[in-house]
This record gives sequence, structure tokens and C-alpha cells, in this order.
Amino acid sequence: MPAALFPDLVEGALRDFFVSRIELVEPIGGGYPEAVTALESFVLRGGKRVRPAFAWNGWLGAGGDPSGLDAPAVLRVCSALELVQACALVHDDIIDASTTRRGFPTVHVEFADRHRASGWRGRPEQFGAAVAILLGDLALAWADDMVREAGLEPAATARIAPVWSAMRTEVLGGQFLDIAGEVSADESVPAAMRVNRYKTAAYTIERPLHLGAALAGADDALITAYREFGTDIGLAFQLRDDLLGVFGDPEVTGKPSGDDLRSGKRTVLYALALESADARDPGAARLLRESIGSDLSDADVERLRTVITELGAVERVERRIAALTDTALATLDASGATDEGKARLRAAALHATRRAA
Amino acid sequence: MPAALFPDLVEGALRDFFVSRIELVEPIGGGYPEAVTALESFVLRGGKRVRPAFAWNGWLGAGGDPSGLDAPAVLRVCSALELVQACALVHDDIIDASTTRRGFPTVHVEFADRHRASGWRGRPEQFGAAVAILLGDLALAWADDMVREAGLEPAATARIAPVWSAMRTEVLGGQFLDIAGEVSADESVPAAMRVNRYKTAAYTIERPLHLGAALAGADDALITAYREFGTDIGLAFQLRDDLLGVFGDPEVTGKPSGDDLRSGKRTVLYALALESADARDPGAARLLRESIGSDLSDADVERLRTVITELGAVERVERRIAALTDTALATLDASGATDEGKARLRAAALHATRRAA
Repeated sequence: MPAALFPDLVEGALRDFFVSRIELVEPIGGGYPEAVTALESFVLRGGKRVRPAFAWNGWLGAGGDPSGLDAPAVLRVCSALELVQACALVHDDIIDASTTRRGFPTVHVEFADRHRASGWRGRPEQFGAAVAILLGDLALAWADDMVREAGLEPAATARIAPVWSAMRTEVLGGQFLDIAGEVSADESVPAAMRVNRYKTAAYTIERPLHLGAALAGADDALITAYREFGTDIGLAFQLRDDLLGVFGDPEVTGKPSGDDLRSGKRTVLYALALESADARDPGAARLLRESIGSDLSDADVERLRTVITELGAVERVERRIAALTDTALATLDASGATDEGKARLRAAALHATRRAA
Repeated sequence: MPAALFPDLVEGALRDFFVSRIELVEPIGGGYPEAVTALESFVLRGGKRVRPAFAWNGWLGAGGDPSGLDAPAVLRVCSALELVQACALVHDDIIDASTTRRGFPTVHVEFADRHRASGWRGRPEQFGAAVAILLGDLALAWADDMVREAGLEPAATARIAPVWSAMRTEVLGGQFLDIAGEVSADESVPAAMRVNRYKTAAYTIERPLHLGAALAGADDALITAYREFGTDIGLAFQLRDDLLGVFGDPEVTGKPSGDDLRSGKRTVLYALALESADARDPGAARLLRESIGSDLSDADVERLRTVITELGAVERVERRIAALTDTALATLDASGATDEGKARLRAAALHATRRAA
């Protein structure tokens, strides 16, 4: 493998994959190639490549050799995770009616805008959602194509099949739990933790690591250690995300300030705040319940931030992040991963749980 | 293979597949297993199994042996087409805002109803669409799982990979052309034919046959013949569908009467009617343009039916169906398919192009 930054390698693999689709897409014509280009831009501006990095580092830590013959195929499989993620984000943005993503208009908004600018018939929003549904589907189908065409040995293909399958079923389950939690207004901390378990921890870290281990043919002991480490770091990662969703800087996160409060997301942070408020501050509890998911001004968001902080929820979330990270790192240290693998996974874990965006 | 009706065999394979997912879905809990059950019901009430039948008959016609060791694996791959179809229908119904499908409420309507009945928070429609987006994604992901886990020989797996990949990219392209055609109000016959080419002909008949041929390891000559036959019959099948979308009996089709007129679908039937009207009846042309995609009463639909018939569009569509079917059957006769395969494909072709539902 050439010496390059890992996100650039992932981007190169994704770019090559999109080039390989041209011969399928061009003959269809009628605006489809242009829509696919919009999907490609979305995928290529995709930032941190967290999932491919965990998969790749998991593979290295299980003895994978970056100068080995199978390394390019492994890189392609790791990169395919970004296409699953593209589907998840594009569809999630329709579900949440989000307007910006990665600092740009979301896909459904972009195509609604194109509809409006072209003076087409019908409702721009409906067209935007329709195109975004189809492009998300395409990303999901292509994720599978990219794995199938990666060039793995048959034995490696067989090893990763159940992991790949579980990962997709789990992330869709996590998204389901998320929306079901919002509508049923389940306010409990365990309900919020369950969403995090499947929507983030399994999907973002545990299964990518598991995938990397399976690619390398790791033994069961290492796979178990990876999965425990990955679940803990994944939960910590999501708790950090919860904090950023309320306290993050829009300039850095690319999402509107206080986005989670406005969208009514049932985060662990919110559940903990409510738990404290119910125990000792009925006024704060009422304010939290009335505010969540409503049309908040910046001043409202600021006030909620103060309330959530004063209720001790921020501190409790930070303590959970620290405890999960400690346990995870101890599991990693005791595992049979290579020294280089441990060093990389430790760094990735700290980065994921301390990040500002 | 046991002697049973083919749709029952497909249903059995699908049922077994859903059973195999329980161990993945149950632990996630939180209503996800119940949502998956709704998807299963949707898939199992799925009617005619046209795509699996063309794939299976294509395999038989290319020398596949239904009493051979690989027959159960082949049946599973053919049946997986119904999961791709489930995704296409569930997502299409959101896009078209359709309320009934196969005589039942569409998935998004079903979950909006559950939301309403449970008195949950938020907008029922938004919840219904969200769940339907996720269940469609799950069906698409599981289609790939079902193929991967079918138990094919590696050589057969390698042969079908490009066909499977092309089929999914094409059907999504066809759906894109369909909605792009609606908003841009492209009224031409060639534009409508292009939608039919990808949304129906390639996806419903050409690629399933190609898949069957690849499963059997057919030679290039038979694959070419199958694809030509499949394209022609697929176009004829869609033209029959266009007629049913305007003239079909709701009791038989399971869709509201005149559905295509109300939904504004740019069918070849409509394009031909408009072409004739523009040439010789400006009043009819104005009526067609004003009516399409609007909220029509049953009397309006009846009036449009008369206009479309009097413009000769029905007759022209019937003539096209007959010509396409003749060419297709000649291609089939001249092909290297087995005699039994030819007989079955001929019967399937006639059934697909003469059906009433």
C-alpha cells in the first residue's frame, strides 16, 4: 500500500468504485448520471472515515499486513462501510427533516432546490425526498457490490459474510429504535442507551472492528475482546456526540446549534437531565419536556444548556464517557492484538471520545 | 425439489429466510421484531412471483435440473428477487404517496395508522414514512444476504455477481427516470419507453432470465437470446400494465381505478394519446394535460378513458404489445433453450402480456 493518509486511501477506493459504475449508469441517462454524481460528491466529502479506520486498524491489530497482497482488497471492503453510511445519513436526514449535513444542504434539500430552480411540476419537497430515497437505496446496494467486487479470497469472503449481514440489520434496527423512541416518548436512560448500542456502538465501532478481525482470520478470543472494546468505545463515542448535539459549535460540527434539542432526539444526556429534574426540580423537568422537539430560539437553546448543565447531566455523561473508555482500554491492553494495533486503536478510541466535531 | 406450485416454493424459501433472521432481530427489541413481522407479511402476501419465475424458468431452459443438488440454492437466489421487489414497492409507495398495495394499506400508511391508534407524539405520516424507509432498506440489505447465504457454488456466485449488481442499479435508475419524467413533464413516447426499459423490462424479465442463465452457466448465445426476449416481453408487460392502470378493475388489480391518471404517471399509453390529440384534437389534448395528476372523480376517469380510447391509443398499445410479443417468441424459438424451457417461457410470456391484474 502506498504511504498516504488513511482518509485519502479510502477516498481513492471510493472514487475508483464510482468510476467502475459509469458503464452501468451512463446508458440509463435521463438525469440519472447527474444524480449519481450528487451521491458521489456526498460520499467523497465524507470527513473522518471513522468506520473504515476502525475496520482497517482492527485488521492490522489482528495481524493484517498493509504491504501484503490482500491489502488493497481489504481497503476496499473497509471503504464500502462509507456507502452503508451514506445510505444511513441520506435516509436519516429525510426521516429527521434535517436541512444541512457536513456543512452542505442535505440530499433531499439539494434536489428540492434543483426542482424549484428548474420550475418543474409538483412539490419540490416531494421530489427531493423521492430522489434521496432512491440515492440512499443505491448507496446501500453499491456497498454490497463494492464488497463483492473487492477481490477478497473466498475464505475471507465467507468469514466476513455474517458480520456484514449483522451490521446492516443492526444499524437499521438502531434507526428504528431511535424513531420509535421519539414518538413513544420513552424518557428512560436504558431506552436511550439501547438506541446508542445499535445505532452507533455496534455499527460504528464494534462491527467494523469485528469485520477487520474476520478479514484477518483472527481467533475467537481477539474477536470477543474487539467486540467488548468496540461496544464500550462506541457508547462513549455516542455520548460525546450527545454533548456535541447540544453544546457543539455549529462551525465545527456542521450542524445547527442545539440540533438535538430542536429535533426532539431522546439522548442519554437528555434522559439523565430529566431523571435529575424529576428528582429535585419540577420546574426544570417541565421546561425540558415542553422544550424538546419544539421550535427553539437561540436564547431558548442557551437557557436549556444552562439547565442541563446545572442538573449535573453533563458531568454524569462525562463520567460515563471516562468509565467506558477506561474499561475499553483495559480490555484492549489485555487482548491478543499486535502492539501496533493496540497503539492505533488506543489513539482512535481517544480521538473518538474526545473529539470536538 | 418437491412437487409443489412454484409460488409456494418461493414463499417457503422466503419464510425460511425470515426465520433465519430472528436471532439477529430479537435481541434488538423495542418494536423492531414487530416491524420486521410487518415486512414479512408484506413479502409473503406478494402474489404472482413473476421475477423468481422468470429466473427459475430461465435456469431450467439453460439446462438447470430441478432434481439436482444445486436446485434448492437456485430457488433461494430466485426468491431473493422478491426482497428487492419489496424494497422497490415499499419505497415507491412513499414516493407516489400510494395508499393501497396488494389490496392492503401500504406500509407507510399502516405505520401511520399504528401511530394514530397508539396516540404517539409527532405526525403519524412522518412516522409511517420513516418506518417504511427503514423497512425498505432492510428488504434490500436482506436480498443480498439471502443471495450470499443461498449455498451456491463459488463459480455460480461469481457468474451471477455482475447480473445482480446491474439489476439493482437499473431498477433504481428506472425509478429515478419515472419521477424525473413526472416533474419535468416530458410527454414524449421515447421518454416513457425509456422508463419502461429500465424500471420494468430489465428488472422484471430481462435480468431475472439473465440471472437464471448465469446460474446454469449458459453460453453467451443463449444469454443474448434471453436478454432480447426478456426486453421485448418486459416492454409488452409494462404496456399491459399501463392499460390496467387506466382500464383495470380495482377488484382485480388491487389498485384504485384510474390510478395512473390520478397519480400523473407518464405512461406510453398517455404519451400516445397525447401525440394523437396534438395532431388532430386540441380539445382532447387540453383535457389530457389538465387532468393528468389531478384529483379526478370517477366520472372524470370514465371520460378520460373514452377520450384515450377514441384517440386510438389503446389500439396502438395493443398493437405494440402484439408486435413485441411476436418478436420475443421468435427469438425464443430460435434460441438454444431446452424444449421444456421454451414451453415454460412461452407460457409465462403470454401470461405476462395478457394478464388482467
